[in-house]
Amino acid sequence: MSRHVYFFGGGRAEGSAAMQSVLGGKGAGLAEMTNLGVPVPPGFTIGADVCIEYLKTRRYPPELKDQVEVSLRRVEELVDRRFGGPARPLLVSVRSGASVSMPGMMDTILNLGMNDTVAATLAEETGDPAFAYDAYRRFVQMYGDIVLGLKGSRSPFAALLEQAKKTRGAKRDRDLPADDLRTLVAAYKGAIHRLTGATVPDDSAHQLWSAVEAIWRSWLGERAAAYRLIHHIPETLGTAVNVVAMVFGNLGEDSGTGVVFTRDPSTGEKRFFGEFLLNAQGEDVVAGIRTPEPIERLASLLPEAYRELRETVQRLEAHYRDMQDLEFTIERGKLYLLQTRSGKRTGAAAVRIAVDLVAEGVIGEEESLLRVSPDAIEQLMHPMVDPAAPCTVLATGLPASPGAAAGQVVFDAEEAFAWAADGKAVILVRPETSPEDIRGMAAARGILTARGGMTSHAAVVARGMGKCCVVGAAALEVDGEAGEMRVDGRRIGRGEWLTLDGSTGRVIHGRVPLVTPTLSTHFEQFMNWADKPRRLGVRANADTPADARRARSFGAEGIGLCRTEHMFFDAGRIDAMRKMILARDAAGRRRSLAKLLPMQRGDFEGIFEAMDGLPVTIRLLDPPLHEFLPHDPEQVAALAGEMGVSAKRLTATVESLREENPMLGHRGCRLGVSHPEITEMQARAIFEAAVAVTARGVRAMPEVMVPLVADVAELRHQTDIVRRVAGAVFAKAKRDVPYLVGTMIELPRAALTADEIAEVAEFFSFGTNDLTQTTFGLSRDDAGRFLPLYLEHGILPADPFQVLDQRGVGKLVRLAIELGRARRPDLKVGICGEHGGEPSSVMFCHDAGMTYVSCSPFRVPVARLAAAQAALKERGFEDRTALAV
Amino acid sequence: MSRHVYFFGGGRAEGSAAMQSVLGGKGAGLAEMTNLGVPVPPGFTIGADVCIEYLKTRRYPPELKDQVEVSLRRVEELVDRRFGGPARPLLVSVRSGASVSMPGMMDTILNLGMNDTVAATLAEETGDPAFAYDAYRRFVQMYGDIVLGLKGSRSPFAALLEQAKKTRGAKRDRDLPADDLRTLVAAYKGAIHRLTGATVPDDSAHQLWSAVEAIWRSWLGERAAAYRLIHHIPETLGTAVNVVAMVFGNLGEDSGTGVVFTRDPSTGEKRFFGEFLLNAQGEDVVAGIRTPEPIERLASLLPEAYRELRETVQRLEAHYRDMQDLEFTIERGKLYLLQTRSGKRTGAAAVRIAVDLVAEGVIGEEESLLRVSPDAIEQLMHPMVDPAAPCTVLATGLPASPGAAAGQVVFDAEEAFAWAADGKAVILVRPETSPEDIRGMAAARGILTARGGMTSHAAVVARGMGKCCVVGAAALEVDGEAGEMRVDGRRIGRGEWLTLDGSTGRVIHGRVPLVTPTLSTHFEQFMNWADKPRRLGVRANADTPADARRARSFGAEGIGLCRTEHMFFDAGRIDAMRKMILARDAAGRRRSLAKLLPMQRGDFEGIFEAMDGLPVTIRLLDPPLHEFLPHDPEQVAALAGEMGVSAKRLTATVESLREENPMLGHRGCRLGVSHPEITEMQARAIFEAAVAVTARGVRAMPEVMVPLVADVAELRHQTDIVRRVAGAVFAKAKRDVPYLVGTMIELPRAALTADEIAEVAEFFSFGTNDLTQTTFGLSRDDAGRFLPLYLEHGILPADPFQVLDQRGVGKLVRLAIELGRARRPDLKVGICGEHGGEPSSVMFCHDAGMTYVSCSPFRVPVARLAAAQAALKERGFEDRTALAV
Repeated sequence: MSRHVYFFGGGRAEGSAAMQSVLGGKGAGLAEMTNLGVPVPPGFTIGADVCIEYLKTRRYPPELKDQVEVSLRRVEELVDRRFGGPARPLLVSVRSGASVSMPGMMDTILNLGMNDTVAATLAEETGDPAFAYDAYRRFVQMYGDIVLGLKGSRSPFAALLEQAKKTRGAKRDRDLPADDLRTLVAAYKGAIHRLTGATVPDDSAHQLWSAVEAIWRSWLGERAAAYRLIHHIPETLGTAVNVVAMVFGNLGEDSGTGVVFTRDPSTGEKRFFGEFLLNAQGEDVVAGIRTPEPIERLASLLPEAYRELRETVQRLEAHYRDMQDLEFTIERGKLYLLQTRSGKRTGAAAVRIAVDLVAEGVIGEEESLLRVSPDAIEQLMHPMVDPAAPCTVLATGLPASPGAAAGQVVFDAEEAFAWAADGKAVILVRPETSPEDIRGMAAARGILTARGGMTSHAAVVARGMGKCCVVGAAALEVDGEAGEMRVDGRRIGRGEWLTLDGSTGRVIHGRVPLVTPTLSTHFEQFMNWADKPRRLGVRANADTPADARRARSFGAEGIGLCRTEHMFFDAGRIDAMRKMILARDAAGRRRSLAKLLPMQRGDFEGIFEAMDGLPVTIRLLDPPLHEFLPHDPEQVAALAGEMGVSAKRLTATVESLREENPMLGHRGCRLGVSHPEITEMQARAIFEAAVAVTARGVRAMPEVMVPLVADVAELRHQTDIVRRVAGAVFAKAKRDVPYLVGTMIELPRAALTADEIAEVAEFFSFGTNDLTQTTFGLSRDDAGRFLPLYLEHGILPADPFQVLDQRGVGKLVRLAIELGRARRPDLKVGICGEHGGEPSSVMFCHDAGMTYVSCSPFRVPVARLAAAQAALKERGFEDRTALAV
Repeated sequence: MSRHVYFFGGGRAEGSAAMQSVLGGKGAGLAEMTNLGVPVPPGFTIGADVCIEYLKTRRYPPELKDQVEVSLRRVEELVDRRFGGPARPLLVSVRSGASVSMPGMMDTILNLGMNDTVAATLAEETGDPAFAYDAYRRFVQMYGDIVLGLKGSRSPFAALLEQAKKTRGAKRDRDLPADDLRTLVAAYKGAIHRLTGATVPDDSAHQLWSAVEAIWRSWLGERAAAYRLIHHIPETLGTAVNVVAMVFGNLGEDSGTGVVFTRDPSTGEKRFFGEFLLNAQGEDVVAGIRTPEPIERLASLLPEAYRELRETVQRLEAHYRDMQDLEFTIERGKLYLLQTRSGKRTGAAAVRIAVDLVAEGVIGEEESLLRVSPDAIEQLMHPMVDPAAPCTVLATGLPASPGAAAGQVVFDAEEAFAWAADGKAVILVRPETSPEDIRGMAAARGILTARGGMTSHAAVVARGMGKCCVVGAAALEVDGEAGEMRVDGRRIGRGEWLTLDGSTGRVIHGRVPLVTPTLSTHFEQFMNWADKPRRLGVRANADTPADARRARSFGAEGIGLCRTEHMFFDAGRIDAMRKMILARDAAGRRRSLAKLLPMQRGDFEGIFEAMDGLPVTIRLLDPPLHEFLPHDPEQVAALAGEMGVSAKRLTATVESLREENPMLGHRGCRLGVSHPEITEMQARAIFEAAVAVTARGVRAMPEVMVPLVADVAELRHQTDIVRRVAGAVFAKAKRDVPYLVGTMIELPRAALTADEIAEVAEFFSFGTNDLTQTTFGLSRDDAGRFLPLYLEHGILPADPFQVLDQRGVGKLVRLAIELGRARRPDLKVGICGEHGGEPSSVMFCHDAGMTYVSCSPFRVPVARLAAAQAALKERGFEDRTALAV
């Protein structure tokens, strides 16, 4: 007979901290504390596996009832009370608790075991009828909300309570006398019956099993599902259920309840930190009806309990070797701990705590690296609203995509696009977004919606774009027609400035300065440690000397992707580029290319200088030529004039270059094969720049990368040109610069024939953006129409453009590495898609045996940490990253 | 020391027919004939491997010279002559000969060993100085053309010969006296020196080695490369070189030369067939300067030689067990065979000969199947110009893409598109085509160009489209501006009718009736045999009852792809479809779908009836919805009026549905996931139709196919809907119809996760069109811009949309089958891309273990034969397909 129920109490527990996957975080903490002799009310945990079995079959194991019965008896014995009474009745709390933290997803029913008889007995026993009926009232409310599903807008309880207080002229809940509370219980029950047709059972066992099943069912509820989706939590975990003897913080002024941290969760500073309320139950602290007091005040009010609390939590931190977040209740002077867990913390705090714990000798450097989630580092790297600047918060929505942005408000996507094209910083505000808005969303600095949740179209698309976004700011009334929004009596018109904080959901009036957080010495120390175990190299994607310098300052060990096309979009260059594209023949193209050559050479010189001594991977021209052409008639006419052709002819040429599916069209190395003179010019610019900076004492390490190869013959064609040009440049300069020629692996066929390709390529760089597009047959530009729906319905577990799809795309990546290395054992292998900075994808790259990842400069530290963690996990270290706030 | 040279002569040969890969077809034939005691002049063959080594290294094996020397001595002994003279000089022919037939690619140098002294000796020896100097003249010409590269427009010889004939007043070449011919030799040599700076060597060994090297080099020549490309012949084969003692058919009226077939190569009828010329060399027969006589005439002129020839060729047919095509020369009454090979034949002849040979007991049924190339069957299936209709051939170009087409001439691609949209049959005529013309090419019935070769843009694109095409019809003068073309003094204006014969290259004036060849009883017999060894099923792609009936008549064993979208394009339906797409919500869509339901149900009823008892695979809606929408403002306005919305709003909606890359956009099952009501309607139409026809005694076997699945979750979503609807329809009708639900495998990710997908899919059908697009990252619509270039440069060996790319796409196909069958051993696997009718791809499908292929109805017999051949080859039968004319 398998064990499904784990008892704890009287200094002994059947579970322990090691059993978190079965007991959930909360249950494991209660068991561990019990074993440590920390005062915890007795209780038991029903394992998460039962939840999954129940959800699959709507049955639970036959032995479960007996095991619960036995554990209940043990609780009764320890506290000398009886579940269901009548004498000395036992009340319990029933709470969910999964193995990963899901804040706000916790369902709790307190005071379970209550009925009219029990309430009367308790009133007598405590001599506090108001306490007893208040407890009864709370139970009925939670039972109605959670078990009978009234939580949310249908919930009648708050209104009834307000009504009762109004009638009585009471300001606070606890000002209501016992009789009023008893009446309220009846009113609650009546409302429940009216709304659901159900009654609240008097039988305590009936109450218990209904509550347990409700918690199990809540695991599949919409709210929990959405949370899991955003945080990549598998549905198959299930939730444990904790049943614990009630203790009461609301039995008078010698009772209370609170939350404490062993260190400051915002800064990481080592100080006893927290708040409490006297004569209150836990939910009162959370609900914010009364303002809690700082924990230091408890020292003077209940010195004995304070001393024990301080001592206990320090013991728990030492035991868990991490900052703890604890809930406690003091019942008539006696302290109980109700929960302990590794405390959530900001990115800055996570780093500081990890570094401090090493300094304190609690953990080692390597273990410290596993204490900080790479996401926490990401938080540190984003621009944020200057904390020192005063700001007027207009509303708070859901923090859908992190970072901060300031810009002028527009209410129409096309207008956003147009304003952005004029160089304005724009915040796009919509009631909600739809696929038609994508162009405007891409053009905006930040996106704000009045409706929608964390998986709404706006949220998913913005996260995909890495763009700051606040959704569901329900206080806003957006009136696109009138060109204004109204919030809290204020009108904000088109063109007014707004600042968004995508990390907290704040919508701030006006233009608040943004800062890139300055990185602490703790951060530097921490990142240095991260570089020790790390095997995977970390490079950055950078197209300009400025980006290259920034990347280097963040620890990039080279440039993994230098896109050359952006260099052609500059105002001074686009004309030459356009003339090149529209030339009638190779000779005409060569003339324009000759003008571009010195400009491009200058770019490369700057980048080589910035990356002195580090490799720079330069990708040859990639996008369809059509992207460079003018489309509005005036621009076409102007260009035609300059080129001495008719506007009509030029329009026809521009039109003829339009493609049905440009993503799958004439781009990448296909351009270099059909127009070899482009490849020649680019190779010349690279090698002339390398020779020039070498003469100035700089160590240039160019790696020339051929994009969009499908067959080794294309790569051979382009490599021949590059090597020929290199030879000519070096011969003329009488100076050799070492270089490599390699290729992107960004088409399934390249991966499938990687053995052939490795015969020519000296390195592979996985372009996982394109590889994801072609493997899924999914255009990133068009996915906004249905990808949000796919994520909502759980058809895909994550946006594959954000999180590398290991089951499909990853399979191709592994295959290509295997085939490539079989042919060329020393093949250098990297990734330069956007996945190169996403932690789980970085870990995959490590496992797949890549040489390096390359990502945007700001994500370099994220990747460095993820790579270090991957190396440590490979050596058997367990994942113990702390949770981000 | 390896053997590179293979001697034959005096009844013994070092080679044999089995050594074709080294000796080439010609060399193997000469060796085999020698061994059989057939009179063949002695000689030797230099193996094809030496050619490849020479081309790679520009060197040949050191032992080669010795081996050639030894063989030459043996030839000299047998004929009692000396190579280089002076007395009894030996002349030889030097000819290329690859292991696969490459008609017109053969380089020949006759009379090698000739110089002034030798000519004088020969003149004396034969007593015929004109013969001797004519032979000299021919040698110098061939040496100049082939060894010194003058062949083509630079060749001066024809003009000089004409000049000489004019001066002398001679009508025929052989009317020139010896002195004139000697003068002509000097003139030829002078022209050679002027044009090339080279002289024709007098030394016979020098002549020989120059000739051999020239033949080797010609293997990489442009002409040969293009031929190989079109016929998928690997470059690595190389060519053998045959050096044979000359015999002369031009030594008087008891000499002659000719070509004979053992059966009629046009019809396959068994009759001795051929033609000859007395007193001529072989090239005179080919050149068409004199009109050859039918072979029967030889019986009365040279009865002894005729009798021996007839007897010999019958012996050779019996020996080779196939129709032979032979070259012979009679030198002063003595017969020599110079070549034997399996004769080229038309598709109809190939089938008849194969069937007759079985009837004659020469070969078995199974062997007969390997005697007919599937391409020959394809030729039989194409429409062709009615052979009985009189026709005026305006010009003849290259037969770039087979079939025939009649239509009205237009000279502009956009006009072709517009006229075709008006329902006209159009022939697009261009000087040459370019990527801008693709839309017009797709709309035209046939394509004709004045310039370009077999790998020109027009040729490659037309073959890709399966569209009749004639290119390089140089006699045409196309004047697009004037809207006319001129040919042979005639003007053909815009709108006039023209008929193209893409199988012969004929450009015919007016509208000639086209016929689909009636299939002979031989054909029926042959195809029945093909179905016996065949393991692979053959289905057809058909969207209408008429197509289904045609497919069935061609032997289709089911429908592998019934596209449902074409049904929506009908005039009576497109409006409902458009309203469905533009509806604001699911309820609006349902209203329009309800109108489409009975129409679609009717289609399915017709198809089920046509395919009574055979499976019909129906693909759910696949293309992007945007394809169904009106784009011109008038149509939009009209639709807006009907829908009661503003034209502006409708235009915006149409615009909003436009995608950057529709191929990778909102299509396939993504439509069904976002608009489940479409899937519901289609499933309802399918099952209601199945139930209805079942009630009429028809056996419907629907297989519902979900397109564009990337993840099993999509398939599960759609399968749930289909099964739910099926259950409801069957319950209502109180009748069950067996059905399957499966999926297209047309995205790399589907192939990579085929194990997961097979958990839900009851069958796989490889959509290799899309799979090729995504695996290569190559849009078929846009590939016209660079794919022709890729084929020209040999970067790709074949158009991957025509011939399945086994190295890349094929790898995914094999992987998917393996993964799928591992999970579901009885998984049905088919292919429904256009590769399903391409012979080499069909063989791949057999090897990969597919259950069936599906192709267009006309290609069903092609696939049946290819599948039979694949099965036979697997059992060890050798490929011996006869060559098509």
